[in-house]
Amino acid sequence: MISAEDNAALTRTGSGTLMGGLFRRYWLPALLAHELPKPDCAPVRVKLLGEPLIAFRDSDGKLGLLDEFCAHRGVSLWFGRNEECGLRCPYHGWKYDTTGQCVDLPSEGADGPMRKRIKLKSYPCLELGGVIWTYMGPPELKPAPPAIEWANVPPGRRFVSKRLQESNYLQAMEGGIDSSHVSFLHSAALKTDPLFKGSKGNEYNLRDTMPEFDVVDFPGGLLIGARRNAEGGRYYWRITPWVLPTHTIIPPRAGHPLGAHVWVPIDDEHCWAWSINYHPKRSLSKKELAAMKGGKGIHVRYVPGTFIPRQNKRNDYLIDRKSANFSGVEGIAMQDASLQESMGAVQDRTREHLVPTDRGIAHARKKLLDAARASQEGKAVPGLLPEEQRVRSCAIELPKDKHFREHARHGVFAPPDTDPVTV
Amino acid sequence: MISAEDNAALTRTGSGTLMGGLFRRYWLPALLAHELPKPDCAPVRVKLLGEPLIAFRDSDGKLGLLDEFCAHRGVSLWFGRNEECGLRCPYHGWKYDTTGQCVDLPSEGADGPMRKRIKLKSYPCLELGGVIWTYMGPPELKPAPPAIEWANVPPGRRFVSKRLQESNYLQAMEGGIDSSHVSFLHSAALKTDPLFKGSKGNEYNLRDTMPEFDVVDFPGGLLIGARRNAEGGRYYWRITPWVLPTHTIIPPRAGHPLGAHVWVPIDDEHCWAWSINYHPKRSLSKKELAAMKGGKGIHVRYVPGTFIPRQNKRNDYLIDRKSANFSGVEGIAMQDASLQESMGAVQDRTREHLVPTDRGIAHARKKLLDAARASQEGKAVPGLLPEEQRVRSCAIELPKDKHFREHARHGVFAPPDTDPVTV
Amino acid sequence: MISAEDNAALTRTGSGTLMGGLFRRYWLPALLAHELPKPDCAPVRVKLLGEPLIAFRDSDGKLGLLDEFCAHRGVSLWFGRNEECGLRCPYHGWKYDTTGQCVDLPSEGADGPMRKRIKLKSYPCLELGGVIWTYMGPPELKPAPPAIEWANVPPGRRFVSKRLQESNYLQAMEGGIDSSHVSFLHSAALKTDPLFKGSKGNEYNLRDTMPEFDVVDFPGGLLIGARRNAEGGRYYWRITPWVLPTHTIIPPRAGHPLGAHVWVPIDDEHCWAWSINYHPKRSLSKKELAAMKGGKGIHVRYVPGTFIPRQNKRNDYLIDRKSANFSGVEGIAMQDASLQESMGAVQDRTREHLVPTDRGIAHARKKLLDAARASQEGKAVPGLLPEEQRVRSCAIELPKDKHFREHARHGVFAPPDTDPVTV
Repeated sequence: MISAEDNAALTRTGSGTLMGGLFRRYWLPALLAHELPKPDCAPVRVKLLGEPLIAFRDSDGKLGLLDEFCAHRGVSLWFGRNEECGLRCPYHGWKYDTTGQCVDLPSEGADGPMRKRIKLKSYPCLELGGVIWTYMGPPELKPAPPAIEWANVPPGRRFVSKRLQESNYLQAMEGGIDSSHVSFLHSAALKTDPLFKGSKGNEYNLRDTMPEFDVVDFPGGLLIGARRNAEGGRYYWRITPWVLPTHTIIPPRAGHPLGAHVWVPIDDEHCWAWSINYHPKRSLSKKELAAMKGGKGIHVRYVPGTFIPRQNKRNDYLIDRKSANFSGVEGIAMQDASLQESMGAVQDRTREHLVPTDRGIAHARKKLLDAARASQEGKAVPGLLPEEQRVRSCAIELPKDKHFREHARHGVFAPPDTDPVTV
Repeated sequence: MISAEDNAALTRTGSGTLMGGLFRRYWLPALLAHELPKPDCAPVRVKLLGEPLIAFRDSDGKLGLLDEFCAHRGVSLWFGRNEECGLRCPYHGWKYDTTGQCVDLPSEGADGPMRKRIKLKSYPCLELGGVIWTYMGPPELKPAPPAIEWANVPPGRRFVSKRLQESNYLQAMEGGIDSSHVSFLHSAALKTDPLFKGSKGNEYNLRDTMPEFDVVDFPGGLLIGARRNAEGGRYYWRITPWVLPTHTIIPPRAGHPLGAHVWVPIDDEHCWAWSINYHPKRSLSKKELAAMKGGKGIHVRYVPGTFIPRQNKRNDYLIDRKSANFSGVEGIAMQDASLQESMGAVQDRTREHLVPTDRGIAHARKKLLDAARASQEGKAVPGLLPEEQRVRSCAIELPKDKHFREHARHGVFAPPDTDPVTV
Repeated sequence: MISAEDNAALTRTGSGTLMGGLFRRYWLPALLAHELPKPDCAPVRVKLLGEPLIAFRDSDGKLGLLDEFCAHRGVSLWFGRNEECGLRCPYHGWKYDTTGQCVDLPSEGADGPMRKRIKLKSYPCLELGGVIWTYMGPPELKPAPPAIEWANVPPGRRFVSKRLQESNYLQAMEGGIDSSHVSFLHSAALKTDPLFKGSKGNEYNLRDTMPEFDVVDFPGGLLIGARRNAEGGRYYWRITPWVLPTHTIIPPRAGHPLGAHVWVPIDDEHCWAWSINYHPKRSLSKKELAAMKGGKGIHVRYVPGTFIPRQNKRNDYLIDRKSANFSGVEGIAMQDASLQESMGAVQDRTREHLVPTDRGIAHARKKLLDAARASQEGKAVPGLLPEEQRVRSCAIELPKDKHFREHARHGVFAPPDTDPVTV
């Protein structure tokens, strides 16, 4: 249970807000790279942290992310012509390059006085890991490119999707760092989903519904360990790293690819749930890719032509209470999303009752608020440096007297190109 | 015409409002009994007086009406699993019984300290007359079960339906106690509807469009008498009882079953229009039941799978101005609802002009406000005792010097299992 | 760029607002005449300047435009029965004539005291030029009927349509007085549209994208001249008259009919775009009429049964970026509307950057504010007198030392029944 003030502080990310300030310190996923498939393709509407923007790829392949509206009379540049290294407003032909600089203002001709002064708000972009990332903060504070592992493996080892979630980012992210719900909500899917089934760890998950949570700080964020009883007098640890602002990595299951998420605020009532499968060492198989594209695992099927899940709140997520699924909703992603959206657009956290298995959530909230205040005061912020982002989830059996803090470091801080430590 | 303040006081029924306090003193219809057809069936979303709730019937058949949201992290219990005498949140398995008591909190095991302290808001329910009723007020003030006649006749003598009305409850209820509009709006239906036609009273209704209204207090509410000229130098009286908070009973027509309504606020801009036909003495015939189920009389046809009328404001109520219907809208229920919804979600009563035929409406408003204030001050409130609810509508011809107050008592306060007094 | 205060003052037109006061000084188009095709036809909902109204044509053909809601209990008179010289509310039979006077109040009989006192707000109407106009201002200030040319030519010389625009009126009107965008947005349509193509002026339009704007006051409003280079060392002038409050006339192209618009606020976020083609001297040809009815030129095709364009914001205006159209949107009207709606329901003019080609817009805003303040102070207001409205658009080539102010008067202030001065 937190105060209404803290809940507001944590969930509002628009320009000028406390948490909005923190989000603007990091590279954020903005679009799938294939949404801008080639030079001079159609521009795309992007809304991030409450700001309406337009993304485009210019004739040279350079990426631009600009204020949505033309500086002249406010027309949406979504209607713009993407041609000859710039986006041209179709109303009077004003044209902008990827930095937002006006490069043509036809009514005053080539050397007019006004053109040079016109510059739209623009944010730098980079393409990495199949994703176009943007940085919306002060230019002088721009960090190095994302070093998170999934974005840096060879393309064949990764699959990235995104879906619209009709809720604030925080309740989505809180689901991502809460591995205790797996024993209930996903209990049926653990046994049947092609990207989840067949792990010894799943058996432990289903058997022990009273995990102990232990949360460990690290420079990038938190390592959230969930401990369950295993066989032979040992503990089964699942370690979920959370890297600021909103990266999470799901602990592995047997030889399956790892799963990861990033939760990115669109506005205070919507977010993008980015969902990634990757394997640090091997290419994904055709069968795995087919399952991911087909909406299995942490991915979904869509309303055609959109990133809106086919199962959504307008159709009660196609719930079928007679199915084997615990909640009647099919698919791991929509099992989570359906419940998170049901909390309301912004969950009222003044009415919640947290328990010890929510320890990761409580720590993460505190860390977010602390980091946001630090950022506001010009102090250091966690998770900005590449080395702080190099972390991986891990599932491990350990003797009862060995804590994951010391004894899972080889799995959590593993070198690239190595197999996950998994059960 | 009333003040904006009085209009607000009369129409707002959320928690903490004046009128909300009054509504919370009575048993209110919450669902049709068949919406929860059997033990462990799917839970149902219910919104009453602005409060989001979940109704369920447990393994023993007991009824529960709880706060919609799990106490843990705010998930809607509409997604709950109804099993083994409780509703289980699918996120982390917290489980509640029909009183809202948490009976299982898996992460802390059987004897944890927290479980016992977790109790959701819950409202007592009872099943009576094909309806699940609830009481949302202070437990110590809970009244005896509803004694209104239609809820207490044998099942074969009753048909109950409900429909969504997209307006505040008050303008719906005011239609229910206003029998003067029958001569206009329902003039065609009086002649053709199988549940209305063939009464001598209908002829009086159509012939005399200048009824005199006389309103008489009784302990349950008001008896609203509408007097029209009959044959043989007599008066034709139609007596509509209004029982607090929002029960109305339509005066009978020849041998047809009686009609009754309850208007129950969902929130300030929507209400349930409960519509009941019943006969105090005989079973309804197959033909009558078929007509009721087919949307005749005071019932409607629905958008499949909902309680939304097929004729609704999004399709202009399928108006056909060339039909015989006075307004072009078909069916008595939707003739009323279309006009009441057209007033706006909450009618602006500062602009109305009441006339003597609105005397019942004016009295009822005053009585509602008086009762609400009395309730607030801990004083007695009308309509709470069973004997105050035992009243019936009546249609009667009387000599001009006999007033219905004294001379229709045998019809209005009739013993159960007797035929209505009707014309 | 204007202040937020001026933007609000210019764009709000509800009752009691500054600009609302100005609009209420003029005759405004309310409906197409054929929306009320004959006596006693169905009434029509009309919303103007934020006021909900009902229009009807009585048994004698007289036009009424009344407050939407019955004075009795607030029912929408859209459900009214239009019969025997009045609109009768179907709830209790109250009936109103075209002046809003209650002419029947059945419950009190023929000579009751109340009926005479009941009078709904009503606005005078007149039918002219295929349009039903209304005047919503103080009765004592009612001006003479509209003298704008298109409304006064013989019917065969005119075609009138209207479409819903989902934006404030001002950004729509500002498009209408801005002939500089033609060189961009409509560049393809100029060459192919049957109602635009084939004019020498079009060539000048496409060749010279740096027009000089010169704005001249006249008693009805402004004459906005756009000057482009022509052949033979001459200038090509296009002169767009703007007559208060929101009449515009498009400069002619060769022998095509003239085009005109009126932009009428429905509420602050919607307006009617009235679109008229007319020829002062000859009847429109069958081919021209077919093109207009087919949505060519400044007209559109509709969602059937509505005045909503088939291309609208819910379907991204059926944009096809591979088409020859400059913005990918088809049709001159929707090319304009798509961009104007994309600015948001009310454009934020504090963020715009006007240039010299926006001189007409800047002058018109100032004139609107000045006129509105004059009206508020009881001073004279431009555009009220018939002679102030008798103006026509003109396209003309002039020697460089001849200004349109003096040398296009024969085209701009032409006598009726004469050919336009055109290029």
